[in-house]
This record gives sequence, C-alpha cells and structure tokens, in this order.
Amino acid sequence: MSQPVVRICVSPILYPLYKEENSITVVVDILRATSAICTALHHGMKGVIPISKIEEADVFAGDDYIHAAERGGEIVGGFEYGNSPLSYINNPETIGKTLVLTTTNGTQAIEAAKNDGPLCIGSFNNISFLSDWLSLQQKDVMILCAGWKNRINLEDTLFAGALSHRLLNRGFDMDIDSDAVIMAGSVYQSARDNLMEFLEKSSHRNRLKKLNLEEDVQYCMTKDTTAVVPFLQGNTLVNII
Amino acid sequence: MSQPVVRICVSPILYPLYKEENSITVVVDILRATSAICTALHHGMKGVIPISKIEEADVFAGDDYIHAAERGGEIVGGFEYGNSPLSYINNPETIGKTLVLTTTNGTQAIEAAKNDGPLCIGSFNNISFLSDWLSLQQKDVMILCAGWKNRINLEDTLFAGALSHRLLNRGFDMDIDSDAVIMAGSVYQSARDNLMEFLEKSSHRNRLKKLNLEEDVQYCMTKDTTAVVPFLQGNTLVNII
Repeated sequence: MSQPVVRICVSPILYPLYKEENSITVVVDILRATSAICTALHHGMKGVIPISKIEEADVFAGDDYIHAAERGGEIVGGFEYGNSPLSYINNPETIGKTLVLTTTNGTQAIEAAKNDGPLCIGSFNNISFLSDWLSLQQKDVMILCAGWKNRINLEDTLFAGALSHRLLNRGFDMDIDSDAVIMAGSVYQSARDNLMEFLEKSSHRNRLKKLNLEEDVQYCMTKDTTAVVPFLQGNTLVNII
Repeated sequence: MSQPVVRICVSPILYPLYKEENSITVVVDILRATSAICTALHHGMKGVIPISKIEEADVFAGDDYIHAAERGGEIVGGFEYGNSPLSYINNPETIGKTLVLTTTNGTQAIEAAKNDGPLCIGSFNNISFLSDWLSLQQKDVMILCAGWKNRINLEDTLFAGALSHRLLNRGFDMDIDSDAVIMAGSVYQSARDNLMEFLEKSSHRNRLKKLNLEEDVQYCMTKDTTAVVPFLQGNTLVNII
C-alpha cells in the first residue's frame, strides 16, 4: 500500500492549485486564530463556529454563544472578544459556550477549504496531538497556511514545516509537488531551536508588538498547551479526540 | 535618505498583492527560461522578445528571428528551439539574431509584470552582474519568481534568497512585508553549500531528469557564466550593461 502524502499550501490564494481529493485539510493561522480555537476547545468551550463575515455573527443569537471578531490584529468595535487565545483560558464566561469567530485570515482560510472534505485545525498548541491523530487516519494531508491577507507569512510556514517534518518521520511521503514541503521544512530546521528569535523580524509579530501582544505571541509559539484536535462537523469545530 | 527595499514574490498569482510602484522587477525562472535569456544575450544574440502565447510567434517573421517555444519542459512541435540555455552557447545559427521566446512559466511572469515599470532578468548565471547593477540603481527591487504554473518552486525561491542576501549585504532593507525575504534567505543559507543536492527532491528537477536534462540543470545552477543584465526595452530584452 502506498504511503499517505503530505502537502503544503502557503497561501489561500494558491489553494485551488494545490487541493487534492481525499485529503484532510489542516488550516493554520498561528497568530492567532487557530491557536485561539485550540485553546477555546481545550478550556471547556463546546465548539467554535468559524464565520467569514462579521454580519453573520447575528445569526447565532442567545446565551449559548460568545461572539468574537478580529480585523487587522484588533478586536472589532462592539465585540468583547477577539482572537487572543489568552481570553479563553480558564474563563468562566466562556466555558460551556460556543464561540462564533471571525478573523482577518484564519476563518477565511477555513471558508476556502470547508467544502473539500475533512478539515481540522493546527497550531503549535496542539501539534503533538494533531500529528498523532493525523498519523492514525492514514490519509493524505494538506496543510493550508492562512497567511496575511493571502501573503505568505513566516509563522504559518514554520508550523507547516514542523508538522510536515513530524509526518514525514512517521512514514508520510512527498509527491511531485514537494517544493513547498522541502522549503518549509528547511525554514523550520533553521528556526526550531529558537522560534521566537527567528520570528523577530516577521511582519505579523511586529504588527502585534505594536499592539502590545507579545504575551500572545509567546503563547502561540508554545507547543502542546492544548490536548485537542478541532474538527469541522457541519458548521462547527469540535474536539474530535 | 532611506535605503532601497528588497521584496520577494514567490508566485505570479501573488504578484498583484505584492507589487509596489517605483520598483525594479527581477523576473526569475531558473529552470530554464531566465537562464536561457541570459545565455542567449551573452552569446551574441541581439535581443529576446518574450511572448506569452505560441501563436504570437508568427508576428515576428523573417531571417532576423529565431523562434523558441517550450511547454511542460519540452520543445513545442514545429519549433527547433526551446528553453535549454545550452542551445544558445556559441551557436552560429543564433548569433546576431533576435530570439522570440515563449515558455510555460518564465515568459508568463514577464507578461504579468511588464507594464509595472523597469523589468530585468535574473538567474544564477548572471547573479553577480545583476546584483552589482541593481545596487547602482538605488531603487526598490521586487524579485518575482515564475514558479511552476503558479505553484512555488524551490529553485526560483533559492535564487531569490541568494539575490536578496547579496542586496541586504549592500545596504538594502526589508519592509513590513519581510516574511518571504526571511524565508527565502533561510532556505538559501541551508542550501548554498550544495545547491544541486538540495534540489535533489525538487519537483522540476525530477521533471527534467525524466527528460534527460540534468546537464541543463547543472548549467542553470552555476553562478556567473554570463556577463549580462537583460532589461526590457519596448517588447525586447536587451543587455543593458
């Protein structure tokens, strides 16, 4: 039997060129949407409904929902929550609720891929649980980086390199479209001993620095803080493990 | 005075998001269009007219022109020449003539950028002359990788990393959109001591291996075989140094 293949797509705009049938898509937006989704589910939220437009939030009314919206790194006016993972840690207000979330990049990437088969969420926060779970599925994996407004970014590519490295070590293959996997793997190998330092000059880290979000960045670059694999069922991401 | 900025765009499909006014665009298609263009001009051809569609070749009729067309790594039926740089080395048939060239990726990337200001051609074959010339211009530089049918590829990204590394060493800056520059630079640093080995698993090298074009790949990865900077004047690339 042939081994499953791991592929990387570094920007949602490239996704139509890369997508393959029968793959599990892993959506990645390290700073900060997918880190926040893992954190919310680990810390007792029932589910996360990703929406691409702010207006869609109104559809989900009532006490069961927490509404969160981020654009350009900041919480959208009128919303109490954004995409800071720290807001969802041991927060009595959010436990047991469903998060309705829209962000600049992450939820847009989910939107792009959600009708193409199984979709789950990756971040450094769940990288070990995710790679264990993916290995068990024995299906091809497409790592889809959310980037920044379709531009490629360093932190998502680093994560794609880290996850693909683990999957290749567990017997996954590359196919003819291997170049992004080789590239992301090489960047990750150079950066792995000090991810934060490597990110020093990255554009989004600097965007967040201006917004005093260094603590968020530290958290998002930390491995295995959450024991979850968020998986899209219907319109809701739930923990599947 | 602020320093000029170097940027990298890893696929033509991303180019509309990255392009900036007042930049010099360097189009890169290492395997093999831009290597062939440098080689043709170094070895006595008068100019290269890049065209995106095969049918446009008919516009340039007569003995002054050599017609070349490549698709998917092979010479198009009915054409004598493709994009192998080796065809243009000390070839009495091509000296003094103008090359009319269409290729899968390289000439498409030129097409995408040709109306956005000064455009020149980069390859490992002219990297030193090109970086000298770019440094003298003191303008922002956009390195546009042709990729493979809009997918990113390793050899173009490696070259982008190599060229940006040289420009950063000569006082160029990165701007907020630095992530592709950091990434390509990191890949280049890992690969620089043995580019050929690093490319071993790359998709296009394997495509070309099947077509017995290893000698082409060796040549295209060799630095400074040509003392030219191909620069677009009207519809024709001519050597500007």
